[in-house]
Amino acid sequence: MAYKYIHKTQYYESDQMGVIHHSNYIRWFEEARTAYMDDKGYAYARLEHEGIISPVLTVECEYRKMIHYGDTAVIELELEKFNGIKMVVGYKVYLESTGELCTVGKSSHCFLNRDNKPVSMKKTNREFYEKMLEKG
Amino acid sequence: MAYKYIHKTQYYESDQMGVIHHSNYIRWFEEARTAYMDDKGYAYARLEHEGIISPVLTVECEYRKMIHYGDTAVIELELEKFNGIKMVVGYKVYLESTGELCTVGKSSHCFLNRDNKPVSMKKTNREFYEKMLEKG
Amino acid sequence: MAYKYIHKTQYYESDQMGVIHHSNYIRWFEEARTAYMDDKGYAYARLEHEGIISPVLTVECEYRKMIHYGDTAVIELELEKFNGIKMVVGYKVYLESTGELCTVGKSSHCFLNRDNKPVSMKKTNREFYEKMLEKG
Amino acid sequence: MAYKYIHKTQYYESDQMGVIHHSNYIRWFEEARTAYMDDKGYAYARLEHEGIISPVLTVECEYRKMIHYGDTAVIELELEKFNGIKMVVGYKVYLESTGELCTVGKSSHCFLNRDNKPVSMKKTNREFYEKMLEKG
Repeated sequence: MAYKYIHKTQYYESDQMGVIHHSNYIRWFEEARTAYMDDKGYAYARLEHEGIISPVLTVECEYRKMIHYGDTAVIELELEKFNGIKMVVGYKVYLESTGELCTVGKSSHCFLNRDNKPVSMKKTNREFYEKMLEKG
Repeated sequence: MAYKYIHKTQYYESDQMGVIHHSNYIRWFEEARTAYMDDKGYAYARLEHEGIISPVLTVECEYRKMIHYGDTAVIELELEKFNGIKMVVGYKVYLESTGELCTVGKSSHCFLNRDNKPVSMKKTNREFYEKMLEKG
Repeated sequence: MAYKYIHKTQYYESDQMGVIHHSNYIRWFEEARTAYMDDKGYAYARLEHEGIISPVLTVECEYRKMIHYGDTAVIELELEKFNGIKMVVGYKVYLESTGELCTVGKSSHCFLNRDNKPVSMKKTNREFYEKMLEKG
Repeated sequence: MAYKYIHKTQYYESDQMGVIHHSNYIRWFEEARTAYMDDKGYAYARLEHEGIISPVLTVECEYRKMIHYGDTAVIELELEKFNGIKMVVGYKVYLESTGELCTVGKSSHCFLNRDNKPVSMKKTNREFYEKMLEKG
């Protein structure tokens, strides 16, 4: 089952088209992704504190229906791939009030150590690796 | 020949990884896209003033090399498709200092009138249509 | 008693100093202010829908202690003045974990109708006026 | 004579009031401030690279006239105080097209070393100190 993250839209996220500016969804994906890690019991802040960063390699987003200021968005997140070296996350953004699917997205990530070298979390951080693979 | 747009990175665009936060590139694409329209002689602000909006349908971005605060980015824009109904724009982000290709992206757009109905710019706004197709 | 709004810091709000970028507090004030209106039973979105906007006239912020990504901020809001023509709101930002006061701010606002003319909410929108003055 | 910085407004800076969202002016102040340092011959990026950060202590902004997407803003910056320990910067934002004064602001800053201790730039970094005091 997918993880659900709630984001209440903010006025500063609107643009003069009267909708949420498209760049914000990329930020919501990050909100959902880090909340998911929190939920798994391994905060991204802790990971960074321990010397691992997880930069974004690719991001994509398809806007099907506009979301407006005042709306509450439900971001459904699914870990599409995670082998400790690469992580692919899928996102579906729904309008809370109607349940309509508004936006679909995906991001992919690697893990780097303090020397900016790619690492395998299976070896480098077994606890994180296992927590990410735990069921729901 | 591709259109070139210069963006000087800003401190507020950096994140605690010490690089430009990935969400900003989506904004730079918009900066480049609207500067391109200005350059063609038909500002996006004018289009909106005349009752046409051009929302983003999809956006994608591939991050190959990180860009840092202090760097100047050159965004090369290419109109990959424009038939007046749909527009697809490609972006390549280079580091000005070294010429390295750092980021590759794409966005697609349609055109809507005040009733949020898709329109063909060929019929609705011939001047815009022709300006967009003029050679660089 | 002051109204309390919780904001979980986001990675995209951090900067390369390793702290939350100072511009975000201005946005948190807006989050708190609109949540306060929601709480009073008159959403800002509804106000705008009815043709009233409430632009920011002044804003000020004093940064005493830095807040970091991963921290949760508690924004305490106090309606310092509200006579239906002008509104002054005070903000105190605390670290949730320690209760430390980190930031102090203030914003002032007026109310404009569709013609951008200042209006008195006491006359224009009695329900909003009374809800804002109701005790917490 | 005041230093002038040009900022072309961007679509992503607009909000659904149809104007530039007030939080962006705080970012423009930072743009102007760092451009000013560049102009003086000592980029802020270099300062940070050498282990000095200059956090914002206070910021204030008064919004007199709204600025719209499509407008070009001229930010006039004046170093109101600089003794190497504290820096106070004043900002006036004008509409380029009409010369109208739209926004007035101020920010104050200190200088911290890698241990987050306040330092006097007169002692710590004489070159920066002198460059900042050089006439226009």
